[in-house]
Amino acid sequence: MTVSSGQTYLAIPGPSVIPEEVLRSMHRAAPNIYEGELIEITESLIPDLNYVARSSGYVAMYIANGHGIWEAALSNAVSAGDHILVLATGRFAHGWAEMARKMGVSVDILDFGKNRAVDVQVLNEKLNSEPKSKYKAILMTHVDTATSVKNDIASVRKKLDEFESSALLAVDCIASLACDRFEMDDWGVDIMVAACQKGLMVPPGIGFVFFNNRAKERQKSLTSVSSYWDWEPRINPKFYYEYFCGTAPTHHIYGLRTALDMIKKEEIENTWKRHEILSQAIWAAIDKWSLDGDMSLNVKDPIERSHAVTSIRLGGKNGTKLRQWLQTKSGLTIGIGLGMSEAGDPNGDGFVRFGHMGHVNAQMIMALLGTVETGLNAIGYKHGSGGLEAAGKVLSSI
Amino acid sequence: MTVSSGQTYLAIPGPSVIPEEVLRSMHRAAPNIYEGELIEITESLIPDLNYVARSSGYVAMYIANGHGIWEAALSNAVSAGDHILVLATGRFAHGWAEMARKMGVSVDILDFGKNRAVDVQVLNEKLNSEPKSKYKAILMTHVDTATSVKNDIASVRKKLDEFESSALLAVDCIASLACDRFEMDDWGVDIMVAACQKGLMVPPGIGFVFFNNRAKERQKSLTSVSSYWDWEPRINPKFYYEYFCGTAPTHHIYGLRTALDMIKKEEIENTWKRHEILSQAIWAAIDKWSLDGDMSLNVKDPIERSHAVTSIRLGGKNGTKLRQWLQTKSGLTIGIGLGMSEAGDPNGDGFVRFGHMGHVNAQMIMALLGTVETGLNAIGYKHGSGGLEAAGKVLSSI
Amino acid sequence: MTVSSGQTYLAIPGPSVIPEEVLRSMHRAAPNIYEGELIEITESLIPDLNYVARSSGYVAMYIANGHGIWEAALSNAVSAGDHILVLATGRFAHGWAEMARKMGVSVDILDFGKNRAVDVQVLNEKLNSEPKSKYKAILMTHVDTATSVKNDIASVRKKLDEFESSALLAVDCIASLACDRFEMDDWGVDIMVAACQKGLMVPPGIGFVFFNNRAKERQKSLTSVSSYWDWEPRINPKFYYEYFCGTAPTHHIYGLRTALDMIKKEEIENTWKRHEILSQAIWAAIDKWSLDGDMSLNVKDPIERSHAVTSIRLGGKNGTKLRQWLQTKSGLTIGIGLGMSEAGDPNGDGFVRFGHMGHVNAQMIMALLGTVETGLNAIGYKHGSGGLEAAGKVLSSI
Amino acid sequence: MTVSSGQTYLAIPGPSVIPEEVLRSMHRAAPNIYEGELIEITESLIPDLNYVARSSGYVAMYIANGHGIWEAALSNAVSAGDHILVLATGRFAHGWAEMARKMGVSVDILDFGKNRAVDVQVLNEKLNSEPKSKYKAILMTHVDTATSVKNDIASVRKKLDEFESSALLAVDCIASLACDRFEMDDWGVDIMVAACQKGLMVPPGIGFVFFNNRAKERQKSLTSVSSYWDWEPRINPKFYYEYFCGTAPTHHIYGLRTALDMIKKEEIENTWKRHEILSQAIWAAIDKWSLDGDMSLNVKDPIERSHAVTSIRLGGKNGTKLRQWLQTKSGLTIGIGLGMSEAGDPNGDGFVRFGHMGHVNAQMIMALLGTVETGLNAIGYKHGSGGLEAAGKVLSSI
Repeated sequence: MTVSSGQTYLAIPGPSVIPEEVLRSMHRAAPNIYEGELIEITESLIPDLNYVARSSGYVAMYIANGHGIWEAALSNAVSAGDHILVLATGRFAHGWAEMARKMGVSVDILDFGKNRAVDVQVLNEKLNSEPKSKYKAILMTHVDTATSVKNDIASVRKKLDEFESSALLAVDCIASLACDRFEMDDWGVDIMVAACQKGLMVPPGIGFVFFNNRAKERQKSLTSVSSYWDWEPRINPKFYYEYFCGTAPTHHIYGLRTALDMIKKEEIENTWKRHEILSQAIWAAIDKWSLDGDMSLNVKDPIERSHAVTSIRLGGKNGTKLRQWLQTKSGLTIGIGLGMSEAGDPNGDGFVRFGHMGHVNAQMIMALLGTVETGLNAIGYKHGSGGLEAAGKVLSSI
Repeated sequence: MTVSSGQTYLAIPGPSVIPEEVLRSMHRAAPNIYEGELIEITESLIPDLNYVARSSGYVAMYIANGHGIWEAALSNAVSAGDHILVLATGRFAHGWAEMARKMGVSVDILDFGKNRAVDVQVLNEKLNSEPKSKYKAILMTHVDTATSVKNDIASVRKKLDEFESSALLAVDCIASLACDRFEMDDWGVDIMVAACQKGLMVPPGIGFVFFNNRAKERQKSLTSVSSYWDWEPRINPKFYYEYFCGTAPTHHIYGLRTALDMIKKEEIENTWKRHEILSQAIWAAIDKWSLDGDMSLNVKDPIERSHAVTSIRLGGKNGTKLRQWLQTKSGLTIGIGLGMSEAGDPNGDGFVRFGHMGHVNAQMIMALLGTVETGLNAIGYKHGSGGLEAAGKVLSSI
Repeated sequence: MTVSSGQTYLAIPGPSVIPEEVLRSMHRAAPNIYEGELIEITESLIPDLNYVARSSGYVAMYIANGHGIWEAALSNAVSAGDHILVLATGRFAHGWAEMARKMGVSVDILDFGKNRAVDVQVLNEKLNSEPKSKYKAILMTHVDTATSVKNDIASVRKKLDEFESSALLAVDCIASLACDRFEMDDWGVDIMVAACQKGLMVPPGIGFVFFNNRAKERQKSLTSVSSYWDWEPRINPKFYYEYFCGTAPTHHIYGLRTALDMIKKEEIENTWKRHEILSQAIWAAIDKWSLDGDMSLNVKDPIERSHAVTSIRLGGKNGTKLRQWLQTKSGLTIGIGLGMSEAGDPNGDGFVRFGHMGHVNAQMIMALLGTVETGLNAIGYKHGSGGLEAAGKVLSSI
Repeated sequence: MTVSSGQTYLAIPGPSVIPEEVLRSMHRAAPNIYEGELIEITESLIPDLNYVARSSGYVAMYIANGHGIWEAALSNAVSAGDHILVLATGRFAHGWAEMARKMGVSVDILDFGKNRAVDVQVLNEKLNSEPKSKYKAILMTHVDTATSVKNDIASVRKKLDEFESSALLAVDCIASLACDRFEMDDWGVDIMVAACQKGLMVPPGIGFVFFNNRAKERQKSLTSVSSYWDWEPRINPKFYYEYFCGTAPTHHIYGLRTALDMIKKEEIENTWKRHEILSQAIWAAIDKWSLDGDMSLNVKDPIERSHAVTSIRLGGKNGTKLRQWLQTKSGLTIGIGLGMSEAGDPNGDGFVRFGHMGHVNAQMIMALLGTVETGLNAIGYKHGSGGLEAAGKVLSSI
């Protein structure tokens, strides 16, 4: 017997829940790509993307997923033979590093493990130990989608400034943009990458490289940038097709326009605040569940936790069992543990993740937590009590 | 501050949550109404509607809402001057009665109040006290959408049979069809009315009169039936347009086709079972909440409770306050108390209703209950604890 | 071999082509029916429906198709035993008359045949020959969807006024509203019926009775009006559910809101003008085709032709063959001849109809005409040449 | 005055008209990307893409537009320093060549102008004059979207074989796939690139590199391939995310699945035949129009004409005027002349293009031609008569 026939709820850390307004705006006949509405809408995206990123710089839009955007950013920032430093707090920083290596870039990694943020003191030591102008770029994630660790970007910039480093600071905000506070200008970020299918609430298919004048100047010194990744024509198109180096992603443009309208209407500060409160409710529940049995939030320090994704350690290694019960019995899908596998857990059963990014509100979080607790009971996973009340208490006080 | 930006959840007792499959199938160009696919699909609805109603009889389809269907049923069953008996267990039976009165029918009502089912002993007495062939029809609801009382239809039929009554037994299943077990043939129901926007999961706009040969014969004895309500051409159309007495509701036909496919895939016995389990989870929570403060399920006897809608008494008369907190803060909409107003409660603040009909599963019920408990706390409504755990316990045992 | 895989074009006289904006607005989760947006949108429809009908009176909205609306109008205007006069210019007036008869109304018909408009001189004679206050109502179509005859409503009113008739003038604008100029107030129409699936561009499912104070007063004198058809609560609802006597047609309300926005944006005078020009293009083509073989516009006098539908006589009785070639080979669907059958043509093969109502523009009319001419050639139907050029000439001069 | 309110028709050479079935299948909640339906559907695309391309080789899918796919193909086939030969019959071959140059590849171009196909005799001379193993790859378009020239791919392969060339033959089928007959295996094509928004009828956003074992082997000899463009993991994924190097384009996958189902249902040979017949109708009309004034098909030899796009020379240089009349007055959008500008025509007014790819049928072609002729008349562009009859004659003979 299952009681899953009903609305399904996808609570994975991206793709996220798509608002019906966004899907509706994408359900349309193909538009003219030479003149008219589409052109105006495309132009209108740039200031609003900057509004979301707190940036006054440039935005190059690409038809690509997050991995494509990583390659786009690297292609405009470094060349084969350059050295970069990667500050790793989870799988995704390593993935970006690997991509750079495949381009012939020489990569140093400072690995901070899987459950804590970048330690600027360690960065300090590293910078001390290397030639001043060794690194062309410092790569890091704002939030790692696998570990759910969030980093303090401003502190890294401050440290780079202390060393008068000329390295570009490149930040991956794929999981965090429009969820966690991010201040591109104020935090001194030179390059930021993002995609549409998380906090921006659009089906996967487009992504963005945000950058400032410093990064723009640096790009000019590169020997070559491939046509598709070259950001220059995209930010300064003489013809409409240059925005996307060829045919524009017509329907995604409509979807993104609608999503940005929703964010502007809520106002980005409120969007961040909403994600913060919902996260606190999630943490409150898990903290209670953690009081008995073997379960815990992956990230100990609240200040180092993402407001968009939460990685949870299940000491009992029953992640798959839990996920499958939820999926087949209740209509809820939660995320697999990713990049967390350890000795004795080849299938990553020791972790699950909750996605709570973008189009998410109080009733969804209560659905998530209430159903997960039900699932824990169903599979007989020992846990503390009072989780739902604790979450509700957070939400009832807003 | 609100945390309501996200998926909204409409948990009112109809219109119910519409599956995306249904909405998708309704998003189409206008079809040809003279020949082709639409005609075949329309024909295919009849056996599947009968499958859902456990009927081997006739189905007349109408472009109308539930009230229209009430009028359709009455128009084919009784004439001005006829006597009928209405067994009332809530507002909707009274509404149907009032409609009959406006047609010139003489109506007797047995009113069983607002929180208990029809008592066949009382019916027994009534039938004893009236001339044997007085009533042309007995009207009753299977489930009253306002009180959430469910009646035992088979027992009423048994009683009518004891009296060898020739009255047609007409049952309103608007709130219950495809949610609560209903056995048209086995229970000896002559006429049954239903609409599409509850258990059938389609936007409001069409409704159905199910009837058997006995009702069909009776209709022939009526002086006149208006063209629009006359069920005869609709069940035996010589031309396609007679199915709906004029233009067919093209898009609803596609939507209903999809909804019936979903029910057939789940199988109606499973659909009923799903509603039963989810209802038990809801009752378990409310029973716990009722242990402190002044709150209770409107219907005391579980056997008399609907599996599609639950009416809840809030002694503290804070229904509006609760609903508004949920709507504005969390994204959840619950139903107003309807037809329950008493002295001292002109706004019906003493009741709220949960709709849990049709496209509803475990994660939605946990959302409903978790968010309502949060709302109760937010507005400071005193209630017992442990409700969510109790609900979860029901769901985790499936 | 067919070349029909592609966009299909439904050029029947209703349901008409639905704009993607309308379909999009109907693709949404079920809304709250107690408060919020839906209530405001519903209220907003009334003034805009009046704008389209050039009326300052009342509008009762119903979940029903055109036949239902006929019954609604009759139910509020006449009682069994009353006499009415029907001015018939095609099948639909006869259908409305038949419906009245089934209600017990005594019906006189002035039949003007199938290809010309009401002759007021004949009406004059009829009124002369009958007692002055015999008729409670005069029924007529503005445009008959079968014959495509359009009547001069104002001249009928003028005649009634000459006789100081107290009869209500009730007009069926189902096929013409928002296509042909209609002036409810100026032309002295008391009751007007319309539905949503023609000029209003919404899938079938709702309809409207427009009426003025005179009709409103008259209704009060009726012995009874059935609950569902009674227009009074619908125009003066104390509760939202009274707008539609029960559950509102939620999705149609959104669709109609969007359609009315489109008409308002174009402005109704322009909408009429557009239909006029497109009709002239159609007539120009058919006039050319009629120069050889046996084919002609059903209505000879251009002033008596609808701008929404065109009925065409095919002397060669090849209507079915033509329609089927078009449907299977080209993707175009045209209307069957309706109510035109004569001796020797039991299948109505002697007529076809073009629908050109609502969401229709120059490129669609050229598709219609170009494809029909192709079809005529394909089935070997003899016809004059130069039709497409003639149509194009009309359209190129705008 | 305009008569454009109605269905718009986008007859540009891509993005093409999207079937409602495709749009509908893309209107859905975000699916799980870890397991379930999406994974199965993704796998199912490969054999069906091969079916469309008549290939038994590999297909790497990318989130990218046509330009991205060009870069993907080049990245897997050549390295900086390699020599390639480009056979140019329009703007797009030059564009691909330019992209190769930006990668550091040394490019020779054989330019065959803008209105004729590749001349294998010229290729013969070129191959004779160069070292035998100079070229790593030969690049060409099957159909150039700008000029509408179609090339005989098999004859090029034959020539290469005569020279025992080891060059990979890479063909751009972006404009032609699923429109013009293409035989990947039989014609000896090593690499073929395509995108989804033309004959495949899906909104822009994904593209494909088809390749055979020869190309697969060659790729292994390259020094490096960037992570995003590397086709190897995409055709042989160990994890689902490797199909698209990161997050999959969830909604495009559903759209493409539906589009491929439509093509399979029609059968690819019929799809090609349909495009052929519709093209012949278009040519017939333009040939008639060309009999007076100064207008002509860009490609003289029918065998060298695309069945998906038709480029038309307007000696009178009124392209913009014509396009604007059509767009604003009739609801039809045709394509701009692209890459055809000559001295004295800086705005490309001397050419327009008709797109007739994918979801296109007889009624659409008659709309296109009928409306264009109307537009020619409206702007006073002199042309021969009888065009529509000529087109209709082609279509009526199917």
